[in-house]
Amino acid sequence: MFRVNEHFLKLSAGYLFPEIARRVALFAAENPSVASRIIRCGIGDVTEPLPSAAADAMRKAIDDLTTRERFRGYPPPSGYDFVRAAVAEGDFRSRGCSVADDEIFLSDGSKPDASAILEILGSGNRIAITDPVYPVYADTNVMAGNSGVALEGGGYEGFTYLACTPANGFSPALPTSPVDVIYLCSPNNPTGAVLDRTALTRWVAYAREHKSVILFDAAYEAFIRDPDLPHSIYEIEGARSCAIEFRSFSKVGGFTGVRCGYTVMPKDLYATTSTGARIGLHALWMRRWATCSNGVSWPVQCATAALYSPAGRAQTRALTDFYLDNAALLADACESMGLTTYGAKNSPYVWMTCPTGLGSWDAFDLLLREAQVVTTPGAGFGRCGEGFIRISAFNSRANVEEVVKRLSVLTARHSSRAS
Amino acid sequence: MFRVNEHFLKLSAGYLFPEIARRVALFAAENPSVASRIIRCGIGDVTEPLPSAAADAMRKAIDDLTTRERFRGYPPPSGYDFVRAAVAEGDFRSRGCSVADDEIFLSDGSKPDASAILEILGSGNRIAITDPVYPVYADTNVMAGNSGVALEGGGYEGFTYLACTPANGFSPALPTSPVDVIYLCSPNNPTGAVLDRTALTRWVAYAREHKSVILFDAAYEAFIRDPDLPHSIYEIEGARSCAIEFRSFSKVGGFTGVRCGYTVMPKDLYATTSTGARIGLHALWMRRWATCSNGVSWPVQCATAALYSPAGRAQTRALTDFYLDNAALLADACESMGLTTYGAKNSPYVWMTCPTGLGSWDAFDLLLREAQVVTTPGAGFGRCGEGFIRISAFNSRANVEEVVKRLSVLTARHSSRAS
Repeated sequence: MFRVNEHFLKLSAGYLFPEIARRVALFAAENPSVASRIIRCGIGDVTEPLPSAAADAMRKAIDDLTTRERFRGYPPPSGYDFVRAAVAEGDFRSRGCSVADDEIFLSDGSKPDASAILEILGSGNRIAITDPVYPVYADTNVMAGNSGVALEGGGYEGFTYLACTPANGFSPALPTSPVDVIYLCSPNNPTGAVLDRTALTRWVAYAREHKSVILFDAAYEAFIRDPDLPHSIYEIEGARSCAIEFRSFSKVGGFTGVRCGYTVMPKDLYATTSTGARIGLHALWMRRWATCSNGVSWPVQCATAALYSPAGRAQTRALTDFYLDNAALLADACESMGLTTYGAKNSPYVWMTCPTGLGSWDAFDLLLREAQVVTTPGAGFGRCGEGFIRISAFNSRANVEEVVKRLSVLTARHSSRAS
Repeated sequence: MFRVNEHFLKLSAGYLFPEIARRVALFAAENPSVASRIIRCGIGDVTEPLPSAAADAMRKAIDDLTTRERFRGYPPPSGYDFVRAAVAEGDFRSRGCSVADDEIFLSDGSKPDASAILEILGSGNRIAITDPVYPVYADTNVMAGNSGVALEGGGYEGFTYLACTPANGFSPALPTSPVDVIYLCSPNNPTGAVLDRTALTRWVAYAREHKSVILFDAAYEAFIRDPDLPHSIYEIEGARSCAIEFRSFSKVGGFTGVRCGYTVMPKDLYATTSTGARIGLHALWMRRWATCSNGVSWPVQCATAALYSPAGRAQTRALTDFYLDNAALLADACESMGLTTYGAKNSPYVWMTCPTGLGSWDAFDLLLREAQVVTTPGAGFGRCGEGFIRISAFNSRANVEEVVKRLSVLTARHSSRAS
């Protein structure tokens, strides 16, 4: 009799975003008259057109595929050399980080990478994740058997949760008991906080001392504007021997529908086996890709390389500037409501306190019901997210301005009720 | 201290195709004067231009992405409804198989699917694979910890190998001791054999009796021309409760560089947990996709749907006909050399006996050295593949004709030496 992976059964409720979608669909069905007014500031999905440099490169790539002489079949499992070179040079070496072309592994996105990395990590690792946290880190580890059961009130037995709160500036303290695998996301999803050089240096030192590995998710790196903030963990001395970095083109290039991301797997990163042998993770990761993937679509790889051209760089900068301006507008509106906001600078997410006395899902329901604005309840990201909601700046300017207006109406309505 | 997945260390040598690439590169470096003559009939990678229906759909999809009103962000994790509907109708319901739209899960390829499926299957399953076998089934199970160590002479401890030989027409006998997960590939890679209705009926009965699950890889289904041969395992009564099917657009649509495939996960397929509960695999697979993937690129999904249009169907038929004609030419040439060939009908692969007295890698080296033709040594697919080589029909007609010519020269040279 065949068996299934029963660790899946530990997963609590649905994945956060499907649950939000369910509530929104239910609201729309029950309130058809305002259903068309719904504005989605929940999931972080881009809205603006693809940079023309990327689109042009894809069109040219499709011409290649229709021409026998330029036809491309199976790509190399980890990406074409010219794309890996553009990435390594553009995102790392040009910033003074030592990353080789063949340390770049292209994929169809950062979420798949965050899941696939567990295939090369062993069982029994003690997992540290922040609270609040991007749910994928937790859920993939539950599915891989690295947790105990779901706990009442959120979270899972067996994980080490690193609290991120206003008190610590959403920069978590080091764990008090040893951990093996540490997830750090900066700029952070959901809080919008960016780990500074001091914090990252502390984490790298911790990882080296405890022989832990840091999984550094820099999917929102392109939104950093403060010149003092690190874009990559490899800006920190020693990180090449203890950290893997994930990047995504979803936000910087408007690629959520195009699908491309990458992992940096440094050749200096070694693990010790149960028999005491040293083994390089780069070789394992290469083997994983050669065995389990046939690489990324030719048009998508061409589009990715084009983001690093002068035109591509100007367009991605304009695109990220646009969303950052949205974030500033939304944060200002929330502050005007008397709510405290975090993030929004160097990040496309506004993380804000709920109106007094409301829990996250209450605030979510209130904003949906009274303003038809879809947010993400902070509690969906962890216990420490309770009392917060996340507003995404990924939207059209018209929608952002409409949300700002509705928030001001809502505030006025509640003030007048209160007075 | 973090641990890696030490099951990777059990993997013997490199993955077959990288090993072939290594030998070819070495030969080319040592024989620069004939390096440009090398013709690759090894890996099954398509050569002909993308069907114009698919290319046109991709171009239109890119226009969508550059237009705010038609922009597409994150796709649904399992594919857009219109694509899933086109697939379910075009590949199944139109052939009398009951498959619902939401039982289709689009992915970026069949190799990733064959790997990902192990995420929802439990540990401790007894794995049955054919011998010879597409290496991915074995390697992914080794990496997942479902095997023992590599055995001298090929294969892994713990797997049940189902011998496929000329004696059984490359249609394996049922296992003599119980197995839980059964990989069947039809039309077969590498032997080119197609399992007939009687054989599949026997396997479905076995799986139902033993509560096993069949992983049915039909990546080459589009090459079947014999009207009596089943295209899908769901043509067999009862398969919906014991089988998962993998399909790929790599060969039918020339998509090796475009990347799209899919899994059929029937809602009738249940497993029993260790506590005796029944659990549907469809729900687990959905959860896997929602958590670990962001779905397939918008242009790629549009291209996929376009393959089911009247124009797309005519073009994919012409494309598969073209490769089948190549296969016939190659098989005839090999038969003229006095070699016995298999496959080539209803399949793009020619599986042939090596010249007398030669092992697979010897024959591979001989053909590379004397004819500069790259084949795939049968031994690379398993012990029962020893004494065979695979020739792929995925090539231009000019190359196929050149291979035919070289084989005839080679035969003449060896006959004259022998006489």
